Amino acid sequence: MHNFTATYTDLYQINMAQVYFQQGKHEHQAVFDYFFRKLPFEGGYAVFSGLETLLEILEDFRFSKEDLDFLNAQGLDSKFLDYLKDFKFQGNIISSAEGDIVFPTRPVLQVEANMVEAQLVETILLNILNFQTLITTKASRIRKSAGDQMLIDFGMRRAQSSGAYHASRAAFIGGFEATSNVVAGKDFNIPISGTMAHSFVQSYDDELTAFRDFAQSHPDNSILLVDTYDTLKSGLPNAIKVGKEMKSRGEELKGIRLDSGDLSYLAKKCRKALDEAGLQDVKIAASNQLDEYVIRSLKEQQGPIDVFGVGTNLVIGDPDAALDGVYKLAFANDKPRIKLSENLAKLTLPHKKQVYRMRNSEGKLTGADAVTLREETNIAHMNHPFDASKSLRFNDCTEEALLHYVMKDGKRTEPPKRLQDIKAYSRKRLAEFTEEFQRFENPHLYKIGISDQLLEEREALRNHYKTQNA
Amino acid sequence: MHNFTATYTDLYQINMAQVYFQQGKHEHQAVFDYFFRKLPFEGGYAVFSGLETLLEILEDFRFSKEDLDFLNAQGLDSKFLDYLKDFKFQGNIISSAEGDIVFPTRPVLQVEANMVEAQLVETILLNILNFQTLITTKASRIRKSAGDQMLIDFGMRRAQSSGAYHASRAAFIGGFEATSNVVAGKDFNIPISGTMAHSFVQSYDDELTAFRDFAQSHPDNSILLVDTYDTLKSGLPNAIKVGKEMKSRGEELKGIRLDSGDLSYLAKKCRKALDEAGLQDVKIAASNQLDEYVIRSLKEQQGPIDVFGVGTNLVIGDPDAALDGVYKLAFANDKPRIKLSENLAKLTLPHKKQVYRMRNSEGKLTGADAVTLREETNIAHMNHPFDASKSLRFNDCTEEALLHYVMKDGKRTEPPKRLQDIKAYSRKRLAEFTEEFQRFENPHLYKIGISDQLLEEREALRNHYKTQNA
Repeated sequence: MHNFTATYTDLYQINMAQVYFQQGKHEHQAVFDYFFRKLPFEGGYAVFSGLETLLEILEDFRFSKEDLDFLNAQGLDSKFLDYLKDFKFQGNIISSAEGDIVFPTRPVLQVEANMVEAQLVETILLNILNFQTLITTKASRIRKSAGDQMLIDFGMRRAQSSGAYHASRAAFIGGFEATSNVVAGKDFNIPISGTMAHSFVQSYDDELTAFRDFAQSHPDNSILLVDTYDTLKSGLPNAIKVGKEMKSRGEELKGIRLDSGDLSYLAKKCRKALDEAGLQDVKIAASNQLDEYVIRSLKEQQGPIDVFGVGTNLVIGDPDAALDGVYKLAFANDKPRIKLSENLAKLTLPHKKQVYRMRNSEGKLTGADAVTLREETNIAHMNHPFDASKSLRFNDCTEEALLHYVMKDGKRTEPPKRLQDIKAYSRKRLAEFTEEFQRFENPHLYKIGISDQLLEEREALRNHYKTQNA
Repeated sequence: MHNFTATYTDLYQINMAQVYFQQGKHEHQAVFDYFFRKLPFEGGYAVFSGLETLLEILEDFRFSKEDLDFLNAQGLDSKFLDYLKDFKFQGNIISSAEGDIVFPTRPVLQVEANMVEAQLVETILLNILNFQTLITTKASRIRKSAGDQMLIDFGMRRAQSSGAYHASRAAFIGGFEATSNVVAGKDFNIPISGTMAHSFVQSYDDELTAFRDFAQSHPDNSILLVDTYDTLKSGLPNAIKVGKEMKSRGEELKGIRLDSGDLSYLAKKCRKALDEAGLQDVKIAASNQLDEYVIRSLKEQQGPIDVFGVGTNLVIGDPDAALDGVYKLAFANDKPRIKLSENLAKLTLPHKKQVYRMRNSEGKLTGADAVTLREETNIAHMNHPFDASKSLRFNDCTEEALLHYVMKDGKRTEPPKRLQDIKAYSRKRLAEFTEEFQRFENPHLYKIGISDQLLEEREALRNHYKTQNA
């Protein structure tokens, strides 16, 4: 659906790249870290997603003739624009697996490339990964609430313009079964699902005929919307009538949908009436401003709802609507690099790094990821990244390296992953985390430790710049 | 950048359209209203935008061969799919002008088309108009705070995926002067602006050389980012050094940018030091989690900031992140149509309608828009849409019709408008509203009245369906 050329970027990337080119720094190798500082939704974890989308875009991220003409008209250097004619991302991506559970401060992904490449892909990388990670995390929370009930993404109309497209992809990874979004279904092979709108019922002079016509057209797949005029007095009895008629023809009404009023109360009334009419297999779907909290509450009240349609709050990632992911230079031209800040938590971690998930001798998570220099091996002792008085010791632990090359010299190291496989992997990874980490309110805090050597490197650089400015 | 085919929709639109086709209802003419129920940001108004985007998409909204193959594989009726081969939107759009000030409950736009067309465009219409109206409204509020200071949209990296593209367009209409978003600049002819990132400074062994190289490459257009290591001890003195060097070469440093710390305090310190160094023309730009409230507060404290770069909070429309716009059937097959609801405020307004902005004999706004049946002429008396005890009388008023045909039979009635013209129009329209309507906290409430005839039509339909279900 998209055609992302290399002008899908912030102008400053191009302005900086021009300087690198003119100063002969464009071939300098750089390493950038992608990470975020704050977990979304006041939750205990985030689910990394968007990687396959990013890789697909990077494989063909170039400037078109029209792009270069535009940049020329903006007054950029013509020699530099000549150089951009052949621009193509030929760097490496070292990443967490898509769908893995990730935490603040630690690198989620690294880009190793020359300065120009690394800078020109920054904006699209942040744009794609920040959003999909946000939505997959939201979807994962809604999945948690919904238990085994079916979840359908209904959010397209309230999504932020074509953000709808990747929202549906991200929601599927996070645990949704289907989407109403046809183009996302087509391009990402997500099951699509559709019921009917109020307008359908309104367009008929009476509701019963509307239901009958729909059932005739969709004998295997009819979910009748029952609240256009009056749920209990009109929609439900008419749906039951049609459900029985279908049954007598050997067909089956798939479900009814509630879209207003008290969903728990109405679902109970509807379930009872459907059952009494011999329509035990007709499902009850519910929608209308749902999120993980409303679904939890509906389930607590044992509203017999089989399918939840979730729209706005899912696809915009309410209430955060943005993940604060950043892209920071850690290494350039053979030297580790740092950004200082008056705010200690905004200090960056220099150097090429690796991240390990630590498990005890029983294979259970210890509750911490460890960030080390890339080549380090001994990770028995770790420091709090921002509080010198705190440290962690790992005894008899196994370490799983979390960052792997997924792109080398601009080429994928393995074929694209199927969305279902990413989803299954994600589910498995989340299942390792105890309930406490998945709690919505004040969840247990997963720790990040940094190695002694990394701490030393950071402090040395910090002192270097402090002294320089003293 | 986009290629929106007609699968950019919710599946239920296609499912419903199939029934209309099979039942011979596909040629029935329908009128749908686009409206919203709640003003965003607890504000006093919204700025309608996205119309040109929508019209451009509708001019070429078709199913591709690939789309139809996909729908075929989903089990849709092959005769219906044959019919969709030639599908093209050939209806009418009757709309408020893009950039106009709009309010809840009243139609903002109407679609007149056959049932299939009207249904198949619903999702993209809502998706495009809801988002751009949200962002233009947000931008308008930020413009209000910023007064005459320059505003640049920096939000691309935190936008909801390719929502970034339309966010930049919408922000420009709402009052931003420029964007960092290169592709939006190119496609919408918005001025683009770019400074430098921390990574640029970090990639050098020292900040001064970084600044010098940048200034050399961008002699007309250098804004130096001064907070990578220490704003006052390092960034500012280095920027002053480079500013003076540029001055001695007959060039001019355009500005410095603050991106952390107390922006008001730092701006004052920087302004003083720049002035003392003879660099009075060097501008101070500030960024970092800005929105209308932070900017208002910075201006109250007289932080000498010339340029505000606004990112996340602008492009996601924080804190709402979605406008609740809906699309409701008002007329079909020669009859007015209604949707009932237990919640009176969710009752729809039936029939083909017009909306008037009422001005008194001095040409000043009366504080109300009037919704009437389309052909009505006498609009001296209006009723509260949901409270029978309240009414409005308009004496000696002039009425401006707000809804006009912008598309007839699938063709625009006039050529595309330039973005600058939409922006200028919007500014003029907003200027008619007194400060009280533009206040951020508890703004003055603009009223919506409905005519006696419209009220009668609504009540008659309401009683009809109530009686039917009694």
